[in-house]
Amino acid sequence: MADERTAPGPDIAPGAMTEYLTDEWAFFIRSARELERFRSPFQSVEVHDSVPFGRLFRLDGHFMTSERDEFFYHEMLVHMPGIAHPAPERALIVGGGDGGSAEELLKYPTIKSVKLCEIDLAVVDISRKHLASVHKGAFDDPRLELCIGDGFAFVRETTEQFDLIVLDLTDPGGPSTLLYTPEFYRACAARLRPMGAMTLHVASPVAHPSRVRDGLAALREAFPIVTPYLASIPLYGGMWMMACCSAGLDPRRITAHEVDRRLAQRGVGDLQYYNGDVHRAALALPNFVRDLAGAGQGPAGGR
Amino acid sequence: MADERTAPGPDIAPGAMTEYLTDEWAFFIRSARELERFRSPFQSVEVHDSVPFGRLFRLDGHFMTSERDEFFYHEMLVHMPGIAHPAPERALIVGGGDGGSAEELLKYPTIKSVKLCEIDLAVVDISRKHLASVHKGAFDDPRLELCIGDGFAFVRETTEQFDLIVLDLTDPGGPSTLLYTPEFYRACAARLRPMGAMTLHVASPVAHPSRVRDGLAALREAFPIVTPYLASIPLYGGMWMMACCSAGLDPRRITAHEVDRRLAQRGVGDLQYYNGDVHRAALALPNFVRDLAGAGQGPAGGR
Repeated sequence: MADERTAPGPDIAPGAMTEYLTDEWAFFIRSARELERFRSPFQSVEVHDSVPFGRLFRLDGHFMTSERDEFFYHEMLVHMPGIAHPAPERALIVGGGDGGSAEELLKYPTIKSVKLCEIDLAVVDISRKHLASVHKGAFDDPRLELCIGDGFAFVRETTEQFDLIVLDLTDPGGPSTLLYTPEFYRACAARLRPMGAMTLHVASPVAHPSRVRDGLAALREAFPIVTPYLASIPLYGGMWMMACCSAGLDPRRITAHEVDRRLAQRGVGDLQYYNGDVHRAALALPNFVRDLAGAGQGPAGGR
Repeated sequence: MADERTAPGPDIAPGAMTEYLTDEWAFFIRSARELERFRSPFQSVEVHDSVPFGRLFRLDGHFMTSERDEFFYHEMLVHMPGIAHPAPERALIVGGGDGGSAEELLKYPTIKSVKLCEIDLAVVDISRKHLASVHKGAFDDPRLELCIGDGFAFVRETTEQFDLIVLDLTDPGGPSTLLYTPEFYRACAARLRPMGAMTLHVASPVAHPSRVRDGLAALREAFPIVTPYLASIPLYGGMWMMACCSAGLDPRRITAHEVDRRLAQRGVGDLQYYNGDVHRAALALPNFVRDLAGAGQGPAGGR
């Protein structure tokens, strides 16, 4: 469908927080109350109450997450690789200052440490203050280590090895721009254990086909196995592509039954989106997405 | 997420065609050119050109379908039951005056007749004039019979039996209101052959949870097997529930492999969304949708 847009457009009416999918296609949510609006050293930050999404926050005018729909995004970003992995112990989140991804990772009893590397302390601060139902106390878990700083520098300099790396980033354009490059992906790949995996959100296959195509191409420069999958994310505007990238882990190899078995065995609960059927379903790509996703996309599901 | 809306809200800015999911959550597409705007005896009708969706039309201020995204909706409405059915011969469409559902049904070589019962001739006329890439000539297929009239009266009075009934309707509120009742569903059930199935779109599980709950309850009053499934429909705002309703046909009984085999064997081609994996994936319900969909929702997928 083309005609993409990366910079935020204007809010279309007073109180209507607007998100543009393309220059000509957007959605808006009415703010019931503005709780915060300031500029951090890195970006503009807003927190609002809203009727349909509860409390939500925006960075540089883009919706990030909300109380009511955070589970669509965080569960699908974390559990696709988390459950496929035999026993994740060490995780790194780049971005994710709201704590939602950390909260999902900390559900795994095998997880010994989660490093959360967020460039902007302001995001952590507003989450602690306003988004308790997103982080659910993750910041107080002794296994969580908060590192405020540049993600690229951290990944390049650390000698640690991780089982899971979660890129929980703003769209390219702001402070995260360099984190959408083959160089950064290669640095992440170098920090993964052999069965480790990195996940990230890519773009909308409907509104941003070229971001999907280019994004997967960049990932394939760094990882032997790049598995695109789909989730529906209301606050991003609908169907959204994510990808699981690894040298050894392929989330297509695990059945729905085995996903449900591992969820129960590991005691990963309080899930509002993800289950065994959804794991398989996320890997099934409509024909136009298969075409977009290109090389190596055989049938995802099968039976 | 509640707070639903059925009546259309105001267009939020000049040239922005606005669709409200709830009173506080909406999306808009800019009109590049207005091609038609008039009142038929039943509803207001508009046709526009747009950059992201190509040509599209609205009824009573609600988006119906577009050149660029019609396949999401029509393929998922028709092929879930069409491929699950062993050999569909006779089909009825109620509504669907744009011809998009007819075009999908006419792909089946076993189909001998498609009755299209549309209350508003104006919809057929604007589709013939402006939406050739939606109907793709379906109106000229000798197997298609157009009946302009009230769908409820037609279904109550006909003595024909059908393999597939497709309710391709506007949302409740306008002329289609009586077609969302157990009475109408029972009348449809009485016109189905034993392995026949009726499909329809229900609502957004995210924006309209009570419409989903009440809609499925009404369907279950008329059909022994009600199978909810999900598709992403950009022009409706994202994740959308459909349902396949029958006394004997259960689309969960068919594997992805068998779907692909039947597509090839029957020569059902030119598909941009639907395939065997997508068939299985559509049946997988996220946990919050399982809760909404209620009774009888065991795991949809299996493996």
